[in-house]
Amino acid sequence: MDFKQFQKDHELHFNDEKLLKQAFMHTSYVNEHRGENLEDNERLEFLGDAVLELGVSQYLFRNYQEMSEGELTKLRANIVCEPSLENFARKNNLGKYVLLGKGEEASGGRKRPALLADAFEALIGAIYLDQGFDQALQFLDRVVFPEIEPGAFSHAMDYKTQLQEIVQQQGGKVTYRILEEIGPAHNRDFLAGVFINEEKHGEGQGRTKKEAEQRAANQAMNQLKN
Amino acid sequence: MDFKQFQKDHELHFNDEKLLKQAFMHTSYVNEHRGENLEDNERLEFLGDAVLELGVSQYLFRNYQEMSEGELTKLRANIVCEPSLENFARKNNLGKYVLLGKGEEASGGRKRPALLADAFEALIGAIYLDQGFDQALQFLDRVVFPEIEPGAFSHAMDYKTQLQEIVQQQGGKVTYRILEEIGPAHNRDFLAGVFINEEKHGEGQGRTKKEAEQRAANQAMNQLKN
Repeated sequence: MDFKQFQKDHELHFNDEKLLKQAFMHTSYVNEHRGENLEDNERLEFLGDAVLELGVSQYLFRNYQEMSEGELTKLRANIVCEPSLENFARKNNLGKYVLLGKGEEASGGRKRPALLADAFEALIGAIYLDQGFDQALQFLDRVVFPEIEPGAFSHAMDYKTQLQEIVQQQGGKVTYRILEEIGPAHNRDFLAGVFINEEKHGEGQGRTKKEAEQRAANQAMNQLKN
Repeated sequence: MDFKQFQKDHELHFNDEKLLKQAFMHTSYVNEHRGENLEDNERLEFLGDAVLELGVSQYLFRNYQEMSEGELTKLRANIVCEPSLENFARKNNLGKYVLLGKGEEASGGRKRPALLADAFEALIGAIYLDQGFDQALQFLDRVVFPEIEPGAFSHAMDYKTQLQEIVQQQGGKVTYRILEEIGPAHNRDFLAGVFINEEKHGEGQGRTKKEAEQRAANQAMNQLKN
């Protein structure tokens, strides 16, 4: 397997190329080559999972300043989960580099989502071990963070956008109005209403107008679903 | 609250003391001081959780080289969980620094395990934001990692130690013997037997003698429980 080419393609420079190779070493391969004293990628995956978790957490913390801890946690879980890790692995062509045992290969193991997700996490673990956290972050900055930007994951959190899309499909129009300001100036809540074609479909209260509108949109979404 | 003293006691030096204070700011306190534009500790907790996860992962990865990914994951979960975080918080006297709202205080909130665990994670998040990963690691090195060493957590993983303790209590004696070496030299497995007072109570197979013995001990443990 040409790991030199892989490094070129992914702007990676390993000090210890054995670590890179290990990231792709499935346990079925190691079992078939026991005399060679190889180690599979599972421990690297354990480490890489935590590196990815912190990298993504930090990214979200800095870029979504309005999000609550609960929303951040949900969003992180949507990014660091098997389906999206598999997706990152596919986009970066990791599948063809995975070293598989013959039995696993014959049974189509190379295409298993878990196998691809594991290799992706193991690769992050290997970069971290070989080059440290900052280099691992730079890798995430190339392959993970850009996928977060366009709203692929944040979508689920942003009720206003979601509501807008649904209503627009049906040719409708969404507007928001602040219905009330509650409490004294130093301790004010806003009450927002969301209107679809001028008819009120939801209300939400929050410390900021945006928060109030998001909650109103959420209420309207729930109403439309029922 | 004297956060200067807190820093002295814990060998911490914050560039931005507001971050340190925020780590202890419960949402009930912020709600009662809305005009002051404070932020509670929940987002810091989100970040600190990931810092702790990576710190512990790295520590385990380096110090438990014989452990499988599954064992590492279990051990990590035992360390990064509410009861043990609460324990770290108590040992480091975090409770008295938490800034609580009056209602929460009156209902005994200061002693809630979740509140203490959250403050502990938020503190780690604050150190990370203020001083970076290496300083956060040094804090973990003072307050978390030493607790792992004596086997407080690894205990659960080490079946041989566990079996030894149980049998010793009853005045018995545990011995291990390698019963068989399986396969050619370059691909050898060991079969270990565990004997309690010379009577066989379990067998285990593994790539190393130690692994085989651990599995045998696990089998004996399960047998004793039934």
